[in-house]
Amino acid sequence: MPQSGYDVVAIGNAVVDVVASAAEAFLAAEGVTKGAMTLIDAPRAEALYARMGPGLEMSGGSAANSMVGLAGLGGRGAFIGKVSEDQLGAIFRHDIRAAGVGFDTPAAPDGPPTGRCLVFVTPDAQRTLCTMLGAASELGPEDVDEAVVKAAKVTYLEGYLWDRPRAKEAFLKAAEVAHGAGREVALSLSDPFCVDRHRAEFRELVEGHVDLLFANEAEVRSLYQAKTFDAALQAVRGRCSLAVLTRSEKGCVVLDGDEVHVVDAEPACRVVDTTGAGDLFAGGFLYGHTQGRTCFDCGRIGAIAAAEVISHYGARPERSLADLVARRLG
Amino acid sequence: MPQSGYDVVAIGNAVVDVVASAAEAFLAAEGVTKGAMTLIDAPRAEALYARMGPGLEMSGGSAANSMVGLAGLGGRGAFIGKVSEDQLGAIFRHDIRAAGVGFDTPAAPDGPPTGRCLVFVTPDAQRTLCTMLGAASELGPEDVDEAVVKAAKVTYLEGYLWDRPRAKEAFLKAAEVAHGAGREVALSLSDPFCVDRHRAEFRELVEGHVDLLFANEAEVRSLYQAKTFDAALQAVRGRCSLAVLTRSEKGCVVLDGDEVHVVDAEPACRVVDTTGAGDLFAGGFLYGHTQGRTCFDCGRIGAIAAAEVISHYGARPERSLADLVARRLG
Repeated sequence: MPQSGYDVVAIGNAVVDVVASAAEAFLAAEGVTKGAMTLIDAPRAEALYARMGPGLEMSGGSAANSMVGLAGLGGRGAFIGKVSEDQLGAIFRHDIRAAGVGFDTPAAPDGPPTGRCLVFVTPDAQRTLCTMLGAASELGPEDVDEAVVKAAKVTYLEGYLWDRPRAKEAFLKAAEVAHGAGREVALSLSDPFCVDRHRAEFRELVEGHVDLLFANEAEVRSLYQAKTFDAALQAVRGRCSLAVLTRSEKGCVVLDGDEVHVVDAEPACRVVDTTGAGDLFAGGFLYGHTQGRTCFDCGRIGAIAAAEVISHYGARPERSLADLVARRLG
Repeated sequence: MPQSGYDVVAIGNAVVDVVASAAEAFLAAEGVTKGAMTLIDAPRAEALYARMGPGLEMSGGSAANSMVGLAGLGGRGAFIGKVSEDQLGAIFRHDIRAAGVGFDTPAAPDGPPTGRCLVFVTPDAQRTLCTMLGAASELGPEDVDEAVVKAAKVTYLEGYLWDRPRAKEAFLKAAEVAHGAGREVALSLSDPFCVDRHRAEFRELVEGHVDLLFANEAEVRSLYQAKTFDAALQAVRGRCSLAVLTRSEKGCVVLDGDEVHVVDAEPACRVVDTTGAGDLFAGGFLYGHTQGRTCFDCGRIGAIAAAEVISHYGARPERSLADLVARRLG
């Protein structure tokens, strides 16, 4: 831990992505919901993988990607998540540390293998996720390093954690410790179907336990079962101190208390694979936020980071985000 | 095996690439020869990996990449090489089969892990390879399926095999079986330093045992210790029935008996990572060759396949090579 603590500590599912292009018809034939994250078990993962095209392996995990983005901008980030003591676990650990993110959660010595996420990228650059959580679901409250959480400006939690009882316990413990230390708690709603599975609890979380909410249009509409983006916006307004609602190429809306800011998306020269767009947006926004930048600038930084990651395969940046932001924002 | 046999069966080192960008200074500080392939042991691999940036994992291996290229063009290819029964081994097997290449070499149940190649990509898009062969070096003559070799039009061997005694035995057995069945034997010289290690034997191979030779400028100059490309060209001329000498952006020269053809490189819109350029060239050339195309067209197909693979990270194509060739060659 840096002497003065991290800017952000994130807790999430530690997974390695296996990325391959896929036809729309493949998703339909497999009965996989396009654009969503579906949890799958080991036999289903094996069967799907057998029918998947040649892959590209990259460390992933939503909150982990966000921390890599934050670190790439010069922020101090840490990640808490569970891998196994296997080859993919070693790859996950190497990559996140090599990106400058603190990662000290001990690997599970036995049990299921390191989690992996099959990422199907359709020709429209949309990504469809099938996740076998594996060791990631072994994360428990004992893995939450209280000293790290207390010292971090923001504790960032991914909604995906809610799918597993012990990860949920870890989530709640971290939120409690952070708030006890007078720190901020941020939440990403992660996925509209994840919101669907836990709507009542997520609503309660947003109102009572979250200072900074990240949600895309589909997620916030699912949370309030709203027919339009505007209806969802009105529903969430005032429920947490800062709500950041992203809308892909339509940019984002930031609700900061009574203030409302509208920030345009960064023009993308090419869109290859949208995996990680939301993660990198959140990482960029959190970087700006912990540097005391204005909400508008935070949104801009998030948009620049997201535009980089969608220009190539994989959910982690290939170019220096700090350079990109310096060039675009000055 | 297809009923009529494969177009090409390739034998080589089965490895998974770990690709990361690196500064020139990093290579210098680590004492790694830029642009070359250096064999490293497990402790050295661990130490280098610890200092390497965040990586991208993709199945690799020179001859294996060539077969993926051949299959992407519509050719029937098979690969013989050794992985271990571990996660990276399963990834290697999945990827090559998903690319449409036959791969039935049994995995080593114990012993060293699946081989991996640390690929450092410098800002000039040059690649520098550090290979821990692992299970790949367990390949032996017992892994050469004689029926497959006998039935394949061409048996393609990578020079890298010469670095390990049992792999070399497998190489020699395959060449003998192929020639015994009246089939062609093709060889890639792989790397100038590999040629340096085995110059006398490689010269003898080229003269006595190889019908189709692939070499880049550095390799063929190393083979004949020639000061210029032209001197190397004169030295190799007449020593095997077909020699294909590649020169990156300068295109290639094909020596076909008494005939000499000069084929331009394919203009590349962007050059990101040159890993696999030679492999994909060979795969494309072999596809044309086994389809009975002219030497000139074979060179063009190789150049188109190579241009695709250098436009992104990783040594396996991201786009349909068959489509690219159809568009460029008609």
